Formats: sequence, structure tokens, C-alpha cells
Amino acid sequence: MAHVNQKTVDATTLRELAQQLRVDSIRASTTAGSGHPTSSMSAADLMAVLMARYLRYDFDDPENPLNDRLVFSKGHASPLLYSMYKAAGAITDEELLSFRKFGSPLQGHPTPALRWVDVATGSLGQGLPIGVGLALAGKHLDRLPYRVWVLCGDSEMAEGSMWEAFQHAAHYGLDNLVAVLDMNRLGQTRETMDGWNGDAYAGRARAFGWHAIQIDGHDVEEIDRAYAEALEQDKPVLVIARTRKGRGVSFLEDQLGKHGKPVPPEQAEQAIEELGGERSITVEVPRPDRRPQPPVRDGFTGEYRPKRWEVGDSEATRTAYGEGLKALGAAREDVVVMDGEVSDSTRAQKFAEAYPDRYFEMFIAEQQMVATAVGMSVRGYVPFASSFAAFLTRAHDFIRMAAISGANLRLCGSHAGVSIGPDGPSQMGLEDLAMMRSLHGSTVLYPCDANQTVKLVREMAGLEGISFLRTTRDSTPVIYPADEEFPVGGSKVVRSSEEDAVTVVAAGITVHQALRAAEELQGEGIRVRVIDAYSVKPIDARTLISSARQTAGRVVVAEDHWPEGGLGEAVLSAFAENGALDGLRLRHLAVSGMPGSGKPQELLDAAGIGFGDIAGAVRSLLDGRA
Amino acid sequence: MAHVNQKTVDATTLRELAQQLRVDSIRASTTAGSGHPTSSMSAADLMAVLMARYLRYDFDDPENPLNDRLVFSKGHASPLLYSMYKAAGAITDEELLSFRKFGSPLQGHPTPALRWVDVATGSLGQGLPIGVGLALAGKHLDRLPYRVWVLCGDSEMAEGSMWEAFQHAAHYGLDNLVAVLDMNRLGQTRETMDGWNGDAYAGRARAFGWHAIQIDGHDVEEIDRAYAEALEQDKPVLVIARTRKGRGVSFLEDQLGKHGKPVPPEQAEQAIEELGGERSITVEVPRPDRRPQPPVRDGFTGEYRPKRWEVGDSEATRTAYGEGLKALGAAREDVVVMDGEVSDSTRAQKFAEAYPDRYFEMFIAEQQMVATAVGMSVRGYVPFASSFAAFLTRAHDFIRMAAISGANLRLCGSHAGVSIGPDGPSQMGLEDLAMMRSLHGSTVLYPCDANQTVKLVREMAGLEGISFLRTTRDSTPVIYPADEEFPVGGSKVVRSSEEDAVTVVAAGITVHQALRAAEELQGEGIRVRVIDAYSVKPIDARTLISSARQTAGRVVVAEDHWPEGGLGEAVLSAFAENGALDGLRLRHLAVSGMPGSGKPQELLDAAGIGFGDIAGAVRSLLDGRA
Repeated sequence: MAHVNQKTVDATTLRELAQQLRVDSIRASTTAGSGHPTSSMSAADLMAVLMARYLRYDFDDPENPLNDRLVFSKGHASPLLYSMYKAAGAITDEELLSFRKFGSPLQGHPTPALRWVDVATGSLGQGLPIGVGLALAGKHLDRLPYRVWVLCGDSEMAEGSMWEAFQHAAHYGLDNLVAVLDMNRLGQTRETMDGWNGDAYAGRARAFGWHAIQIDGHDVEEIDRAYAEALEQDKPVLVIARTRKGRGVSFLEDQLGKHGKPVPPEQAEQAIEELGGERSITVEVPRPDRRPQPPVRDGFTGEYRPKRWEVGDSEATRTAYGEGLKALGAAREDVVVMDGEVSDSTRAQKFAEAYPDRYFEMFIAEQQMVATAVGMSVRGYVPFASSFAAFLTRAHDFIRMAAISGANLRLCGSHAGVSIGPDGPSQMGLEDLAMMRSLHGSTVLYPCDANQTVKLVREMAGLEGISFLRTTRDSTPVIYPADEEFPVGGSKVVRSSEEDAVTVVAAGITVHQALRAAEELQGEGIRVRVIDAYSVKPIDARTLISSARQTAGRVVVAEDHWPEGGLGEAVLSAFAENGALDGLRLRHLAVSGMPGSGKPQELLDAAGIGFGDIAGAVRSLLDGRA
Repeated sequence: MAHVNQKTVDATTLRELAQQLRVDSIRASTTAGSGHPTSSMSAADLMAVLMARYLRYDFDDPENPLNDRLVFSKGHASPLLYSMYKAAGAITDEELLSFRKFGSPLQGHPTPALRWVDVATGSLGQGLPIGVGLALAGKHLDRLPYRVWVLCGDSEMAEGSMWEAFQHAAHYGLDNLVAVLDMNRLGQTRETMDGWNGDAYAGRARAFGWHAIQIDGHDVEEIDRAYAEALEQDKPVLVIARTRKGRGVSFLEDQLGKHGKPVPPEQAEQAIEELGGERSITVEVPRPDRRPQPPVRDGFTGEYRPKRWEVGDSEATRTAYGEGLKALGAAREDVVVMDGEVSDSTRAQKFAEAYPDRYFEMFIAEQQMVATAVGMSVRGYVPFASSFAAFLTRAHDFIRMAAISGANLRLCGSHAGVSIGPDGPSQMGLEDLAMMRSLHGSTVLYPCDANQTVKLVREMAGLEGISFLRTTRDSTPVIYPADEEFPVGGSKVVRSSEEDAVTVVAAGITVHQALRAAEELQGEGIRVRVIDAYSVKPIDARTLISSARQTAGRVVVAEDHWPEGGLGEAVLSAFAENGALDGLRLRHLAVSGMPGSGKPQELLDAAGIGFGDIAGAVRSLLDGRA
């Protein structure tokens, strides 16, 4: 068994190590019966040189803040990554061969089920943007000299999110970021748009403010020189490595039709023979020279003094979001904020003005915004990211992957629903509740007043997974005292009496419509209970069910959202899960028909979710009263 | 009233026209009390020269296939667009002043509520990608000499989708596309990343294979020369126009803090005075010189002979999608297909091989893929676009906007659910049903066998709005004869008896799990009814409700999706909408816990949606039987 360290390694050994990574990539995927060996083989030389000569990483202590970060943006090259782990002595050969088996942390694409993987990849075009987030944290928050290495595929250069990453990396001067482009020419079904045209990639990278280096990605000495050059730059670096997919095996190399296909067992032996057989090189990846304390203090270490409103005041929940963030920023130095260049609308600006060092302008690039938040979550920060709720749909795939990464993200979507008024449907968040509810482990919050918003922002800081706060554009009356508590999973009965005939479940803007409807109905002698379901997920099933029982099963749900996937279906599911559907008579009011421009109340009424509609639904439920 | 036509217009008149557009932009937004006058004013000269000298458009006949297309990618400059309509004589001054009022088609951002607007904009970074779709249709399908003009903002250049558009436009040689960049330097809250650095934009555009021209965007003669130069290029052209936001009014021009704010009435008079007062210039926009027939024949004009499978065969529904598309391609020449470089996985490749002229490779750029489909829908084609269901989340904002545009899109998401097996969670569509159901006017279909899939593909061709087909990776048994019909909104009772004690509602992969559970339960003397709810939206409420009644309200729903927003909640909503919740006892089985890699059945079982889980849910419902 050869043992290699950074001081002793020579070019011959690097080539041998690369061949071992290829052989192991084939062995793992052939054993699994699936996977991407050829996409691993093209990048083997690149990664051999990286791990043996440049990477600083303590596999025994992945939490060391000085560790370099390595992200496989081309996540399908997981056999290569896992072969590197084996070569580094982090996993055994037996573990390597558990690749893609049920229960193995060596999944088809990398996820943090492995402790050395920071983020899940496998949806192309995400690793580099997240690498930008990590590098931003390294340079501007941690202020530690670790480097972020990202292995990119050439197919994923077609994803716009890659170019968001290029722009932001240059804008923020991320000289701690090196992207290695495995330009193997071949996509899944055909040649990429640019093939081996390294000049095209280099020209674009330079036009975006990066340093670009073109090399033969199978020449370990060229690779070595390129990495050395990369370390000397004062800007982000793209190493464009011309490679051949399936490199080293005659019947795989540079062949179309070999993407994502394991080598059949009967051919694997020949392939391994062509690569010079199995080897057992282990690499002593150099560790950082010290183990500093994590650079951020988490938890409430400073004074927390949020703005308070009096009941009867009028304030927009989006404004309260900004105030809540600002107060949190004073109390917790781990809170960081990013926004998609609408911070005067989302009111994240209040934080930005108070704590400019912890505010990161993501411009109009919502994918990069979420990716940055993911990167900062990896580094232990408490990121809040905001845009219009409608525009968070732009980052849906990033949010979905963040859930797989186990990232702790807090998202705020402002301008929810038709109640925004004149700007029209393009600006109205009407599917955000459905999107955010359907994420694994997510929390979905929708406040109706300013004091409640501030409390929920504080709650979010302590939540794991992805949490979402939905805010309203216009001012709404403050209905809760500033000391009221709003636990996640709770709800508030905001109006009730002994004679309540119907339960009205509302959240956000519709709470106020429901209260107005209740007032109007009381004049007719009809009493209704109004529940503020501010915690849409998890929802307060107990209160909903007991209230429904007290109102003879009569329930109206009103929400400023399309009918599918939002509050109404959350309420239905709560009853179903608890076996409480029997006897339920539920009217669900949601946005019907495509809205246009208008005044908020005009649009609420046109959508069928205004106070008049709620009162009408209550009456219709009572018309059927025996 | 001055009347201008293309032959007589001189520079002085162009400048006057631009001032009129500015004045009208102010008047419209001040009257509305909201809107974006300053973002309109920066581009007024650019649009004055365009409409008076270059645009070919028949406002009386927006359907003329020879019309140029004009897309305001910076949709918030709607006051400018509407002022152009007024100058062209298409709307009256009174109509202009209805801007943003309830019921007016002059919404806050442009939508096809106005007949001259092809697509809704207002979510930045979408107009240019859709322009690429229109230009692709013009050059490669219509083969007509119309030109696509897109007015872009500089803030939106931060959206990755813009660079997807740049790449694809160059790749497809779209010399019929001119993007005009209104480089006014100022975003919503701050300067853009690149300010007035026109060289930066030009360098990037050139690096992406475009022709770039830099001009002073307030010099009508420079603008005129730039457009003339643009018409002579054999590649897409970016005109980078250095402009000043709020141009022409001393207290607005190049000022931060003036974004999205109407001029207060008390200042509007002064602003209009500085601009030289109101004018009444009308422009005779030249019409195309003829009115050709629409270039495509729609409907079934050829022979439709889809592949047929025998009951008992085994086939993946994704493969049947490909076969269905291919058959449709033979029968309908208006069918066009695009895919995100996974066509061998989605099986769109079958169409691509048969009809290469109507297949458009979108590489790994799902946003551009949907944008292309939108563009082709505008031009009357019947687009089908496919990727992994998981990766369609990448285009969520584009799909959302397509619904506002009223586009007719057919999307196919393959590799649904945990049943894909070893690739792991990044590749599993687990939130696609929630995403697709929550789109206004959408249709969501989820077949379980090959013959059914082919029939549904045929149905989709005739649907309006956005329809979605969810397909499965692995082969499943064919359970329906090839002549069976599957209307949208229907369902199939695939197993039933007089003694059924429980109704099991399934779709796609879970139909087969349900059938196996039913078989197993029958051995225990328990009969269950199995319903294939292939039409998830609209769902067959009648069959569900009547079946539930026949099984004493006992219902199990099983789906390969997260619990929220999918089949289970669709079923609940169907009962709720029809006042049929009373007596319902429903067990909802959906994916619980984050999946990893494994074999399909292992993962179905681990997720709690395998046949054993379904049988268990049936038994548990019956345990409670009186």
C-alpha cells in the first residue's frame, strides 16, 4: 500500500492515484448496477491533484472552521467523490461498495448523510452558487483563509444559475473560490453547446470578471500549475480542463451513449485492466494547522428590544418583518440577511441599514440568494432571505435541494396574494403556501399583525429546516398586544362566544376580513368564531377540531392563495389526520379566477375572499341548519 | 395633432414623440397613484425610434403572422408601453388613464388582457427568454421574416435566465432577435452591479456569441443607427443604451429612491412642463405588407397510429410518453417538443428522432425550456416540454407566469417519486403535484400504464392552459386495453366487488401497489375497491364520493409524493367541495421522511406507501369497524 503525502507526491504517483480513482469509480458503480462512472473518470486527474497537493481538510474533524470546502456541483460524479474518500482513508473499500444500496450514506448523488458533504447536489447548476455562498461566508463573515473548490460539469454551464454565481462571485471579490470545469464535451444525450471550445468558456468567465486558465485536464503537471496559479489570483478562478469522458478505457473514452451507465460486470474487468488494475494508494490530505473556535457566537448574546405596537395601530406585516430582523440582529450576531434587490419592499432594508456587514445584496437573482443562504447555513449562520413571495418560486429547485441538504433557512415572501392591489398578478404570491408546505420538514408561518410578525421572526431564528414567513404589503390593524406569544404550531382564537354557530379559519389578510364579516354577522344575530391560523405548517389541529365541534362542524376557511395546497387543504389534512372529518361541513374560500389590477379590497372581493364572501359562506352553512 | 409615418419622421419629431411618451407615462401613473414612470422615461427615446422607424405591426390585426413581436421584458415600464399604444392610435387617452384601475386591461404589468401583448411580464428575466422562443418559432417553424424586439432592464441582467437566453439565441443563430438594454444604472434600491459599465455588458454579450452595440440611449440618431446596424447582423444583437432613469425631469433624473413611485400630483405639472407639455403625436406604425395564412395546420391532419400494448405487458409510462408524442407528431404538424437534455430519460427522444425539425434541444436550462414553449404557444404551436419532474421546479416562476400569459403548455415530468430507486432524493419528483395543482387553470395527469399514457398525451394536445403529465421511471404492468378511453376529469375503478369494505385511491406507481395490496387482502377475506385517479386535477369527485359511500366512508389514499398538495389533498378537497366530508374516514399515505438510494420497492416500503402499508391502512380502518 502506497502512502502519499503532499511533500512526497510526484507526478507518477498522481497519475497512479487518478487511475485508482477511476478504477474505484467503476467498481462502485458496477457493483451498484447504476451510477455515472464515465463522468467520474473525466475528472479523476483533476481531483487526484487537488486532494494530494492542494486540499486542506481534516476528515476526522469536518467541523474544523479552517477546512477547505469541496463541492461536487456535478453531483453525478459521486463515484469519484466517494473514491476520493476511500483514498483519503475516510471510508473503507467495503463502504465504497455499498454505493447506492438501501441505507448506505453513499447515495446516488452526494448528500450530507455523509459527514464530509456540506450540501446535496445532483440538480445541476447548484453547487457553484452554493460555493459562492460558502466563499462569501469565508471571506466576509468567518474571515478565515479556507478555500472553496467546486467541481463543475460542462453541461451545467447551460443553467442560468451558474452565471448568477459568476456575477456574484466577481461582485464580492471572492478570491477564495476556485471552480474546476470538467470540460468533457459530452452531455447526457449529445455534445454540449460548446463542446471542447475552452475559449468560449474562458471568454465568458473573463467577461464576468473571473480569472480563467485553460489546461489539459489529464496532464497532472498542467493541473498542478493551474491550481498554483489559481491560488495567486485576487479574483475568483475558473480552471477550464479539457477532458475526455470515460478517460482511460478504450471502449468508454469520449463515447456518446455512455452517460449514467455502469460498466457491465463482464466488461468491468477489462476496463480495470486497461487502467492498470486495482491499487491501494492512500493520501494523507493535509489538515489545517490549527483548530480555531467557530467564528460566530450563536444564540441571544445581545440585547433584544424589538419594536412594539399598540393594539389599534396600523402597520404592514412586511414592515414588522424588517423591524423584527433588526431587533434580532442586535441580539444575535449569527443572524445574516440577504434580499433580491427589493429590500425596501420586503423591508429587509431595516436590517441592512443597521448591520451592513451582515447584509448581502443578491440583486435580482433569487437562485443565488437561496444558494447563498444555504452556504451560510453550512457555516453555522442563521440566514434570512427575502423577496416577493411570487419570486421565491424562481428558487424552488434550490429550496427543494436545500431541504435535502438539511439546511436551516429562513425565507420571507412579501406581497402575498391579491391584496397587494394595483401591481397585478405577476407580483402576487398565490402559490407560495403550496410550494412551501410541500417541502420536507418545512415550517410555514403567516402573520396578520405587526406584533405577531416580530414574535414569529424571533421563533424562526431557532427553527431547524426551512421556514417561511408570508407577509402582506398593506397596513393592517394591530390586534395583538406586544407581549402575546405565538408558538409555532399554535393558533389564536381572536373572536369567540358561547353562541358561535360557525368557525372561520383565516390567516394573514383574511383574519381582518373575517373579523369584519363577524362584526357584520353579529348585527344579524349570527355569532362566529374566528381563528387566526398563523402557523399553517404545522397547523394547530387541536384548536381547529375542538372549535369545529363547538360550531356543529361548520367551518369556513378563507385564504388569499389559489385553492390548492394552501391553508384550506392544510385544515382539511389536519382533520383527516386526526380522524375528525366526520360531521365536518367546510366551505373553502380561495382565489378564484385570474386577478388583475385594482384596489386591495376590490381584488379581495373579486377573488371571492372578502368579508362579504366570508359572511355569505357563513350564511350558506347556516341555511342548511336543521 | 401631428401625424407621423416612417417616411416623414425626422429626428426632431422622434425627440418630440419620446417626450410625449414620457409625459403620458407620468400622466398615467400619477392618475393611477402607482406605477413606474422613471423606468419608463429612461427608455422613451429607444421606443420612440423603434415604433416610428422600425417596428412592423398591424394594431388592427395582432394575429397577422408577419407582425414583429415586441416584448417588454422590463414589464414595470408598462406606462411606456401603453403610451406607445396611445401614440399608435390603438388606445384612447381615456383608456390610457384607466391604468391600474380595477377591470382595466391596462394592468400594473403587461398581460395578454391587452390584445397586443403576447405574454405577461413583470417577473424580471423572463421576457428575453420568451423572446428567444418567439424568435426560434419565427426562424425555424414559421420561417417568416418578422423580428422579435425585447426591451430589457439592466437590473434583470442579474437573473441567470437572461444568460440562458443569451446562450440559446446564439446556439440557434437567432439573427431575428434584437434585445435593447435600457442601461439606466439604477435598480430598485441601489445601483446595479455594473452601473453604466456598458463594456461589461458588451463583453459578456460578445462572449456569448452576440453582436453588441453601445450607444447613448437618449440620442435618437444614435439609436436609429444602432437599429439599422442590428438589422444587418447574422446573429442576435444586444443594443446597450446608456440612459438616465427619470430622464428629462430635473427632480427625477438619475435619482436614487425614485423607483416604482408615481410623481405626486402636485409635482406632475412641473414635470410635464419640463418635458415641454402635452403633445398629440400619432404614429402610423407600418403594417406588414401582406397577411399570410398562419403557417401551421392545427388539429389532426395526418394519420394517428400510436403504439399499443397488450394487457400484461410491462412498460414504463415514460417510454409510453415518448411513443405517444411520436404518434402525435405524425398526426399533427403543430406539435413541437423540447427537452432539458434528458430526452433519453424522459423519452422525448422518440419524437426527436422522428421529427428533428420540430424538436428543440434546450440543454440543461429548464427556464429557457419553458420560455421557449411559451413563445411557441404564442405562435400557435402545441408545445410539449419535458424534464425530470424534480427539475421542473427550476422553472416554477416561468410556469406561474405562463399561466398569467394564458399560454397553452404541456409539461411532462418523468422520474416521479421515490420509485425511481438508486439515484436518490435529488432526482425524485416529490413536490411536482403540489406545484402543478396550484397553477391557475392547470390540468394534472398521472398515468399508471402505457396505453393510458398514450391516450392522455393525445388529450393534452387539445387542452388549454397548462397541463402536466407525471411519468414513472420503471416499467409497470399494462392493465388497460389499448382502446380504453381516459377523459380528463375521469378515473377508473380497476378492482371492485359487491363486498368492498374500503376504497383505495391511487395514481401512477401506487395503483400497482394498491392492486397488490388488494390481492393480499383478498386472501384475508377483505375486499377493497381500487380507484385509479389518473386525473389528479380536475379530479373525479363523483366516482370518489360514490365509492366512499359504498365502502362506509372508508378511504385510503396512497401517493408517491410529499403529503402536502398532492393526490391526498386533492381527494380531500373533492369531498369538501361537494359537501361530502360527513362520514369520511380517510387514511392518507404519502412519503414520510427523507428518502435515500435503494431499490424501488425498498424505497416505497421505507416511505410508507408500499403495498404492505396500503394493506395495513386498510386493516386499521377496519379495526375500527363497529
